[in-house]
Amino acid sequence: MAHERALDDLAALLGPRLSRSRAERDLHGANEAWFAAAPPDAVAYPLSTAEVAQIATICAARGCPITAWGAGTSLEGHALALSGGISLDMSRMNRVLAIRGQDMQAVVEPGVTREALNTELRATGLMFSVDPGANASIGGMTATRASGTTAVRYGTMRDNVLALQVVLADGRVIRTGSGARKSSAGYDLTGLFVGSEGTLGLITEITLKLHGQPESVMAATCAFDDFAGAVETVIATIQAGIPMARIEFVDEDAARAFNAHSGASFPQKPHLMVEFHGTPDSTAADARRFGEIVAEMGGGHFQWAETAEARAALWKMRHGAYPAILALRPGSVGITTDACVPVSRLAEAVAGARADIAAAGLVGPIVGHVGDGNFHACLLLEPGNGDELARAKAVTRRIAERALALGGTITGEHGIGIGKKDLMPLEHGDAWELMARIKRALDPDGLLNPGKLVAVPQ
Amino acid sequence: MAHERALDDLAALLGPRLSRSRAERDLHGANEAWFAAAPPDAVAYPLSTAEVAQIATICAARGCPITAWGAGTSLEGHALALSGGISLDMSRMNRVLAIRGQDMQAVVEPGVTREALNTELRATGLMFSVDPGANASIGGMTATRASGTTAVRYGTMRDNVLALQVVLADGRVIRTGSGARKSSAGYDLTGLFVGSEGTLGLITEITLKLHGQPESVMAATCAFDDFAGAVETVIATIQAGIPMARIEFVDEDAARAFNAHSGASFPQKPHLMVEFHGTPDSTAADARRFGEIVAEMGGGHFQWAETAEARAALWKMRHGAYPAILALRPGSVGITTDACVPVSRLAEAVAGARADIAAAGLVGPIVGHVGDGNFHACLLLEPGNGDELARAKAVTRRIAERALALGGTITGEHGIGIGKKDLMPLEHGDAWELMARIKRALDPDGLLNPGKLVAVPQ
Repeated sequence: MAHERALDDLAALLGPRLSRSRAERDLHGANEAWFAAAPPDAVAYPLSTAEVAQIATICAARGCPITAWGAGTSLEGHALALSGGISLDMSRMNRVLAIRGQDMQAVVEPGVTREALNTELRATGLMFSVDPGANASIGGMTATRASGTTAVRYGTMRDNVLALQVVLADGRVIRTGSGARKSSAGYDLTGLFVGSEGTLGLITEITLKLHGQPESVMAATCAFDDFAGAVETVIATIQAGIPMARIEFVDEDAARAFNAHSGASFPQKPHLMVEFHGTPDSTAADARRFGEIVAEMGGGHFQWAETAEARAALWKMRHGAYPAILALRPGSVGITTDACVPVSRLAEAVAGARADIAAAGLVGPIVGHVGDGNFHACLLLEPGNGDELARAKAVTRRIAERALALGGTITGEHGIGIGKKDLMPLEHGDAWELMARIKRALDPDGLLNPGKLVAVPQ
Repeated sequence: MAHERALDDLAALLGPRLSRSRAERDLHGANEAWFAAAPPDAVAYPLSTAEVAQIATICAARGCPITAWGAGTSLEGHALALSGGISLDMSRMNRVLAIRGQDMQAVVEPGVTREALNTELRATGLMFSVDPGANASIGGMTATRASGTTAVRYGTMRDNVLALQVVLADGRVIRTGSGARKSSAGYDLTGLFVGSEGTLGLITEITLKLHGQPESVMAATCAFDDFAGAVETVIATIQAGIPMARIEFVDEDAARAFNAHSGASFPQKPHLMVEFHGTPDSTAADARRFGEIVAEMGGGHFQWAETAEARAALWKMRHGAYPAILALRPGSVGITTDACVPVSRLAEAVAGARADIAAAGLVGPIVGHVGDGNFHACLLLEPGNGDELARAKAVTRRIAERALALGGTITGEHGIGIGKKDLMPLEHGDAWELMARIKRALDPDGLLNPGKLVAVPQ
């Protein structure tokens, strides 16, 4: 077995918390998307930062790769152990270390999931806002710069991580950022680790910004005859300064998927799903102004989610878009695109994507966090159908190229992993080489999540 | 003269836009604070990114240092040419390249000042929010991660820079970020260059986030018997979720300075200066709720700035705090501290600073962006009085150490430059060495603003 000496040292450190079982390895070599399995040689379950530091020290001495594992919900193969070594499963580092009400901050270990954190916060009047849909781990969300439905109001992980504790490739432990809301004390290392996908260091503690639970919440869906009307509504709503907490686009195929899978009764048309947070007065005013814009743009079919239960059902349905869409073609696997463009170019970007998907003879419903200019086409493929996969990859590339041509990015929130690595030079040019220089500076032996995000000689 | 061959090459490129005059060199070797003059060997005035790239290429070939210069308003000696070479004065790269109304973005060259940008934006209904007081250049504000009075609502430069064009030390030109509101496409290079103080690259174009000009603005001052009441009011206001656009603290000495210098008539007490942005209804509601909190905390003496002119006068006075405070001791120079702590610890931090200043026998009025937990003591010194300078430095260090002990940072917005470099190991430990590794990876010959922010062998 590869890395035998490292694994022996790690077993001496961790005892039964180093597993070499086939089942554990297979679980940590699988992924939510379509990528080939890539199991690690073993799975380590640390309990503390000190233990992660010891693991890193052993792996550095023995040349053993370390791939951090959160909740395994990545769609880009981030946590696949491409070069073997260990999968560092953070699920047992799952304590909420502190909730600082006056400062509206929480300090958590990486294995805490976003739902577990919000359950713990319920009685405090505070909430953790970032909502990628899946019940991802905070560590994974930090490492991939996750966002989701509420980013339009509360920002992404970039905006909601204040400070980190990180174990470096050589086993040293550093802290980045502080409990202060801002700082200009040197390079923004916190920002550098957020979104670094486990390639620069191992995140062992995260200080998060919290937000007040809104006093009043109003949510609704509304329908449009064409998606351009929906997109124009988004732009006009932003221009009017109406502070949306969520504004989601769902095309007619996704609406059909919700009807079939979640018992919804949407007209088979493009929809927006919106939510407003504030005081009873402010949400009522926001909803009224939004309704005026929708009417102006030719939309209608408003369905208000009047109760907390109705709102929960609405967002549960939205978060279930991926399985609902997959069920449109039973047994299929999905390739999910993730382009993000300036909002003014969103109609063009979506129209182009729809045309590409149709021309390729594929099925690919589109949903999106349109307040951010971010949309996903979920391309439905028959497993093992190489021709379909090739066509889907070509469509994915065209959607990404168009996003770049429109001034956007190849990925709004899903990250690079292995799925979008070949698109990185298109977006970044020489700046991608700069990323590789940073990678080499921080992880000279290339042991942290090798093969992901950057191109460095292995 | 040092760097003679580089200067000859640069003169051939730039003609009269390379100045070796004594006056130009002295101007670019001076600073707003108390640091010793450090003039460059010449001053270059590029007109374009291409020219900056040519300059960098020449300087790389000849080993000539480059220190970027914006508007010269830094308080930490950022733009001093410690190792000679050229001062790269960006003031002639001062075009607003694009205003994208639908996307609420502007693209500017680094020499555009924040006031010039807002003048250009006036008719668009949009504004650039970051307000450090001084009419700094956008390039300098980006390089130092500036913030100021409005960060509590609209964020710092970290939050308001979407994309950059940067000339690297070897003359290559890269772009970071995009026009999309978010991205997870690899390391956050934009965030890395924001706040890098000219040590990693030369910023030649900045894409900024804009905000809607508020429909309604309300501003007021109110007084408290002690500063603890003012700080408690800030915490309670944040907890109540009242969205302040500005909330500034001014102590009794600073109030006295405003009375003497700006014709104000404040009671000689600690004050808060606040501003609310929104609709007429929302600002009225915010002001009412804020007034209730102030009353509860024992504050009063409300003075509402009823007109746009009155508000302009209020913030002009606040922005003039530095000269007003200096005028309390005619002929003095100032050392300005810049600690930033979690808001819950602000009262402790300010009380400790006041005690330190009194114990050192110094005069140091305190003002602060208290919604962010950021405050400045302006220590007034007799020029050339080495004993006073030593005592002021000791106080500065104690204030910074206390900020760290309270979970904060040594600098909320002024940056490191040379003024706070000796405090960096206290805040960052091994993470400071990480910064040096990044510096070496991006600027291996150490030609970009040498001697600032990081410790690398020259």
